[in-house]
Amino acid sequence: MVFAIDLAKKASLLNEVPIGCVIVNKEKEIISYAHNMTIQMKDPSAHAELLAIKLACKKLNVLKLIDCELYTTLEPCEMCQYLIIQTGIKKVYFGAYSDSIMKNKLKIKNNFLKRNEYYGGINEKECSDLIKKFFSDLRS
Amino acid sequence: MVFAIDLAKKASLLNEVPIGCVIVNKEKEIISYAHNMTIQMKDPSAHAELLAIKLACKKLNVLKLIDCELYTTLEPCEMCQYLIIQTGIKKVYFGAYSDSIMKNKLKIKNNFLKRNEYYGGINEKECSDLIKKFFSDLRS
Repeated sequence: MVFAIDLAKKASLLNEVPIGCVIVNKEKEIISYAHNMTIQMKDPSAHAELLAIKLACKKLNVLKLIDCELYTTLEPCEMCQYLIIQTGIKKVYFGAYSDSIMKNKLKIKNNFLKRNEYYGGINEKECSDLIKKFFSDLRS
Repeated sequence: MVFAIDLAKKASLLNEVPIGCVIVNKEKEIISYAHNMTIQMKDPSAHAELLAIKLACKKLNVLKLIDCELYTTLEPCEMCQYLIIQTGIKKVYFGAYSDSIMKNKLKIKNNFLKRNEYYGGINEKECSDLIKKFFSDLRS
């Protein structure tokens, strides 16, 4: 998670929403990592998790990441949750809880919770402060 | 939709699930199009809709596709629905209804229906038959 937070900090230097993601295998070796790149790549799908999952699949030459675990600084959005379910990533560790997901209370989350081990609130304050600071700077 | 079906047919020749997608602007000019490429690209996110949305954003150099309409041969999955909502595409026309979405009855669909005009069942039989044939060939 410390590495994911470093990635999130790098993202904010590029004016990207500060979210970082790291994927490891069952030996806890890093397979792939990414931070948000939507603005740099002009790609609304370029979330940290989606990019890291794509990289991991390319690197391992697979479409499933059954034995992998994902660390991300923010609770994944519905798009990334879908991809986590599809690729069979079983364990997800995230930092800050997402307000938008809690507000929408999306059913996909229930599916997600059933199929995945899902641990939130890891280094929560640091992850959450990064995002709050980013949006507060943006507004001012 | 006829062009989207042609794209879906091309996908099946590459052993990809036959789904095609076309994005047009309000003058009904084609902005981008794609078919499923998950196997070819070894990318679980390479759905027709996601690829077409990415291409449209790149081409127009934007992150929002407010004035665009999307045609797809299959009801979009939750990942693509999220991206459709995020990019503000207002009108979506799809061919076959997705069994998996109906089974999951995902809440995201409700959000989706509220924010988007969503027209299903266009050339439904042709779109649906393509997918059924693909999976039946795969099994045999």
